[in-house]
Amino acid sequence: MAATWSMGPGTLEVPLSLFATNRRRLAEKLKPGQVVVLQGGEDINHYDTDVQYVFRQEAYFIWLSGVREPGCYFALDVGTGKGHLFVPRLPEEYEVWMGKLLSCNQFKNIYGVDEVHYVDELRNVLKSLNPDVLLTLSGPNTDSGLTAKEAVFEGIDEFKVNNEILFPIIAELRVIKTPAEIEVMRYVCKISSDAHKQVMLHTKPGLMEYQCESVFLDHCYRVGGCRHVSYTCICGSGDNAATLHYGHAAAPNTKLIQNGDMCLFDMGGNYAGYAADITCSFPANGKFTEDQKLIYEAVLFARDAVIKEAKPGVMWTDMHLTANRAMLEHLKKGGLLKGDVEEMIKNGVNGILQPHGLGHLLGLDVHDVGGYLPHCPPRPEGPLARLRTARRLQPGMLLTVEPGCYFIPRLLDGAKNNPSQAQFFNWDVVDKYRGFGGVRIEDDVLITEEGVENFTFVPRTVAEIEDFMANGANFK
Amino acid sequence: MAATWSMGPGTLEVPLSLFATNRRRLAEKLKPGQVVVLQGGEDINHYDTDVQYVFRQEAYFIWLSGVREPGCYFALDVGTGKGHLFVPRLPEEYEVWMGKLLSCNQFKNIYGVDEVHYVDELRNVLKSLNPDVLLTLSGPNTDSGLTAKEAVFEGIDEFKVNNEILFPIIAELRVIKTPAEIEVMRYVCKISSDAHKQVMLHTKPGLMEYQCESVFLDHCYRVGGCRHVSYTCICGSGDNAATLHYGHAAAPNTKLIQNGDMCLFDMGGNYAGYAADITCSFPANGKFTEDQKLIYEAVLFARDAVIKEAKPGVMWTDMHLTANRAMLEHLKKGGLLKGDVEEMIKNGVNGILQPHGLGHLLGLDVHDVGGYLPHCPPRPEGPLARLRTARRLQPGMLLTVEPGCYFIPRLLDGAKNNPSQAQFFNWDVVDKYRGFGGVRIEDDVLITEEGVENFTFVPRTVAEIEDFMANGANFK
Repeated sequence: MAATWSMGPGTLEVPLSLFATNRRRLAEKLKPGQVVVLQGGEDINHYDTDVQYVFRQEAYFIWLSGVREPGCYFALDVGTGKGHLFVPRLPEEYEVWMGKLLSCNQFKNIYGVDEVHYVDELRNVLKSLNPDVLLTLSGPNTDSGLTAKEAVFEGIDEFKVNNEILFPIIAELRVIKTPAEIEVMRYVCKISSDAHKQVMLHTKPGLMEYQCESVFLDHCYRVGGCRHVSYTCICGSGDNAATLHYGHAAAPNTKLIQNGDMCLFDMGGNYAGYAADITCSFPANGKFTEDQKLIYEAVLFARDAVIKEAKPGVMWTDMHLTANRAMLEHLKKGGLLKGDVEEMIKNGVNGILQPHGLGHLLGLDVHDVGGYLPHCPPRPEGPLARLRTARRLQPGMLLTVEPGCYFIPRLLDGAKNNPSQAQFFNWDVVDKYRGFGGVRIEDDVLITEEGVENFTFVPRTVAEIEDFMANGANFK
Repeated sequence: MAATWSMGPGTLEVPLSLFATNRRRLAEKLKPGQVVVLQGGEDINHYDTDVQYVFRQEAYFIWLSGVREPGCYFALDVGTGKGHLFVPRLPEEYEVWMGKLLSCNQFKNIYGVDEVHYVDELRNVLKSLNPDVLLTLSGPNTDSGLTAKEAVFEGIDEFKVNNEILFPIIAELRVIKTPAEIEVMRYVCKISSDAHKQVMLHTKPGLMEYQCESVFLDHCYRVGGCRHVSYTCICGSGDNAATLHYGHAAAPNTKLIQNGDMCLFDMGGNYAGYAADITCSFPANGKFTEDQKLIYEAVLFARDAVIKEAKPGVMWTDMHLTANRAMLEHLKKGGLLKGDVEEMIKNGVNGILQPHGLGHLLGLDVHDVGGYLPHCPPRPEGPLARLRTARRLQPGMLLTVEPGCYFIPRLLDGAKNNPSQAQFFNWDVVDKYRGFGGVRIEDDVLITEEGVENFTFVPRTVAEIEDFMANGANFK
């Protein structure tokens, strides 16, 4: 049996037992007689053409099966603990166009599952397992508002099906990472950190933003074996750094980087389905101005405050406010703000400068599942409603810590016209920062028994960044 | 008015008049009172998550509008010749997350269209044009078997709609490229050629196939401004070169390249929507063995024969057979085959060694539309049925010329067991080539008044390849 999967020399060997462990953890939460059935992803064509998007497997399906190809189903028989993979039955002609036809036995070895059948046998194999009930997956993704796609197959109406039991259990299991999953996350964060470092060395005024994106993609893939990145790269320079989801089709990283710009590059690789999500902010020319330094260090101060305080038992909402407080305090010292920091927060000044939440769960999805499960604190009302989770931290959680400070014209104008907020700003200073863009510092951290372990290894202090961009090789 | 679109310094400035010309060409084929309505592409989420695929616009929509972002409609009023773009009306909050809210006037300048409205005004604007009939797009894609997605919007039932008139006209217009389109194709073929050359310099035994893919992607994007490639890269080495559509999720360019392998790399960039599609075959270690040379030169001989004979008036089916004949002749000389070449073709030996057609139309889709339109020769019966077109060549057509020779175990075994085919093979020689993989040489060519102009600039002869891989800088 192939006991591992990897992308070759120098890349991480992922033990197939990672997925077997996931199956065992799930079976332990369920009852004999229950059979879990998940349907994997399908290829997607570009419109009516015969060109297809590069396939990416659905995250719950990866979690349970480790299977990387389209058109499959997976069943976990809770009673026996056995995992059954169902693969498409391909015509002989497949071999001419698509590659070797693999036997069920070969698939068994590749993915380390107990049994392999063809998809057209699904109904009959499930019948033979004689289940009391099939458990399918259905539940809300609280980041997108979309719903997980339930398995469907011909003959499913001959079974008793329950689509409510599985979702909260499997989502919760995904929140707490196993040691094997943590190793994959450590790897993809390291590769992504290294890729960010390559980008920092490459960046200079006169390049287009997307050229930096390309350097990142190339390092992740060529060196780290990451065929995918976890999300569309956000490569904002100058005032684009204040566009939080920059990089999409209407703003596709196509500005010329100018001398004096800050760069805000939010990019993360994906390995074996697992996602990194890292942001580096740095001056395009390698040397901070005093103005840039002030904002950057305010955000770094916020990051440090969270890293110091985050540990099991702490509420994520409190961490968010810890970050906000630290940043506002620093900006007040720097002369941008005035007045009492708690009063600023009561009046929403934190949300003007950082409209987004502190971070989110991270795993097989970049905005990983489990943020608002039924047994967890509900989404807060009011200014904290944007947070992607309000949970209490637990060992084994992986999260991003990503405070930011942005000068967003529409929000600043709103604050200026709102006396309860306007009073906290020194507008002569703040208005100088219009066009500045913003700064975000985003680390990927594991919650341990003691506190956090940071999986992000990039130059972070002003001195580290300046030093690294001047003499790359010296940074460890 | 911004008269061009480009990806910045060093990349091609595409005149917006390219799309205006397309609209004019279409209007000339239609009647006053007709209003063409196309619906552009939408963003696609990864399953139920909030991560989206990097957007790629639908090809007919690009052709008519040049518009690169999702959620739009386009109407061409044949009577006035005016192009109306409809863009989504975005909430103010968009500006915080996604970037500056653009006015209709700004969109007008960006895309060089006559009028811009919001999508929610579509019904009313169309009413105001007082059309006799709306022409929507519906017709078969003969490569995929799928159907073009017809425009739909609320209120369309208040109009008379015809979905038959438009398709054959617009598809035919896409077949014959304008001078401006030819310049874009020339550019994207040049960038893709250069990227292939970078790959050839980078390739060596001990690398993984996908590392070569990454070099290609990086060059196309970073140097050429191609955010997309036209199709999933096929990077086959050794026997993977005999898998014609290698590179997909179940065979994702993950073999270690060995000393002695031939590489078959089929990859093409995409710029402004226009697709290149180029294949280079070369020895991983830079030096052909005699066996490799024999197969390579047979394929090159086939390519040369087509390039020499292709010109307006010639049937593509004849070009296919010209390539087959040249290759079989060469393989016969080399001792792999015996007997009469015409008899080989009658008995399907050509289809054993090259199961695919000679090439295809090329443009906004890599397998471009128009292969089998109603006014064209129908898909042949029998062995030529795989050809993606059977058309007579015309000036302004762009096609790939891509003969290949593959040693595909299943097909060779079939031939060996079929006396009418087996008689033509010297099996002691042919069996030595099992595991060899294959060779394909794919050029992108324009049909001119006189013959062809080749847009592909890569080392092609054995001497050129060996020389280039040994001393890269010397190839022009």
